[in-house]
Amino acid sequence: MKSEKEKMINGEMYNPGDPELVKGRENARRLMRVFNQTIETEYSKRTEILKELFGSTGNSIYMEPNISIDYGYNMHVGENFYANFNCVFLDACEIRIGKNCFIAPGVHIYTATHPLNAEERISGKEYGKPVTIGDNVWIGGSSVINPGVTIGNNVVVASGSVVTKNVPDNVVVGGNPARIIKEIEN
Amino acid sequence: MKSEKEKMINGEMYNPGDPELVKGRENARRLMRVFNQTIETEYSKRTEILKELFGSTGNSIYMEPNISIDYGYNMHVGENFYANFNCVFLDACEIRIGKNCFIAPGVHIYTATHPLNAEERISGKEYGKPVTIGDNVWIGGSSVINPGVTIGNNVVVASGSVVTKNVPDNVVVGGNPARIIKEIEN
Amino acid sequence: MKSEKEKMINGEMYNPGDPELVKGRENARRLMRVFNQTIETEYSKRTEILKELFGSTGNSIYMEPNISIDYGYNMHVGENFYANFNCVFLDACEIRIGKNCFIAPGVHIYTATHPLNAEERISGKEYGKPVTIGDNVWIGGSSVINPGVTIGNNVVVASGSVVTKNVPDNVVVGGNPARIIKEIEN
Repeated sequence: MKSEKEKMINGEMYNPGDPELVKGRENARRLMRVFNQTIETEYSKRTEILKELFGSTGNSIYMEPNISIDYGYNMHVGENFYANFNCVFLDACEIRIGKNCFIAPGVHIYTATHPLNAEERISGKEYGKPVTIGDNVWIGGSSVINPGVTIGNNVVVASGSVVTKNVPDNVVVGGNPARIIKEIEN
Repeated sequence: MKSEKEKMINGEMYNPGDPELVKGRENARRLMRVFNQTIETEYSKRTEILKELFGSTGNSIYMEPNISIDYGYNMHVGENFYANFNCVFLDACEIRIGKNCFIAPGVHIYTATHPLNAEERISGKEYGKPVTIGDNVWIGGSSVINPGVTIGNNVVVASGSVVTKNVPDNVVVGGNPARIIKEIEN
Repeated sequence: MKSEKEKMINGEMYNPGDPELVKGRENARRLMRVFNQTIETEYSKRTEILKELFGSTGNSIYMEPNISIDYGYNMHVGENFYANFNCVFLDACEIRIGKNCFIAPGVHIYTATHPLNAEERISGKEYGKPVTIGDNVWIGGSSVINPGVTIGNNVVVASGSVVTKNVPDNVVVGGNPARIIKEIEN
């Protein structure tokens, strides 16, 4: 029989009040809090906390505070990861980010979602869909990446985008909902 | 004769520099600060602070830090209220939220507005319009709810929406400005 | 020969790992941190910190915490400047804001940008474009102002706008990308 955590990561309906999941969120919030209290010159301490918080990371990674993350263990970021101020990552399901990705301030990546039907939603059960981001992607400031989205390699997401569908390699997308604005020569 | 606070709540032009209003904002900011300094396991302390800060609440309510709220006493939230990270509520006028509402991260609800005419605006006088949200509403992440908006029951506001007009019951809205995307069977 | 700081302010490609620039960001983050730790009644301390952090300011200026700013020395704000909760200003190039400007919560102003070509971008070199905002401008909440944008006098930017192009005097703009919604009589 699957645990609630296994259901959550598998994208099935789960109960977020499950004690194992509560402990996981409390652990992530404790590490976030310690991270957000570091001072501006504590570069190696920040990196160490992110490596403890995330499921897997490249060697060279950096985030500006404040960070807000649900579980942390479903975050997988590649080499040379950089995220600017005030990013929010809701990682009920996996968020996989390739190498050399730059995330601008205030970017929110969501895997968490709820049923559209009110009765089902207010039962408290919820589910998620994973987000996958390729290599060499730049996500512009204040953008939102919705649950289930896959973004290709070398993509630029314009600032303020709301990305609701998959994005192929080598394009700039922008707008709400985000659409392809141009192709990039790489 | 009406006080500036009475004018503010009534949606008339008021002077935000009025001493009673300044004290009200300072009190809200003090409670916000205490709330934002709680740690992740202080669930009951967080609930107590919200109950002191808000005008009225249901019994079971939860918000993730950091919260940013103007006065607090114009906030009225129903039973089973949940708001995720970094929500901003500008409650110069009343913000009334029904029962079983879920607010995703980074949602901003504004009742505060300013005159469009520059000379009037820079006089410093301002005014507000109330926001009313029904029961069983889910507001997606990074959405904005504008002054004067009423949202019906069982509504889903897609992530990144900018809601500028009233929304009827049982629909999904999305986009900027938000439009009806689909009807929900409830 | 130009320093990396001179190149940055001039809008040329520069290396953000340059020691002088690292020191500049650390100094801004230290002042931001002290600002964000002030309490709600420390009005004059907040003003003093902003005057130390910014390149130039009017006499009467106010920001709500939390503030997030890259260098500070490229920020130039006029008399009677007000910015609400959680604004983010990326000032690799100059951000010049006129007098009597009101900035609502969660507004992000970016001068920092990156090459679209992935290989160039992941080299780590980057560049910026200045942002100029006129007098008596009101920028609505959760809006984004993109690098290189000039906004005229008496402009109102509707909440949730993504401003990607210059805006003339005396108009309301809104949407993503922002377009002129109406003219304002002034």
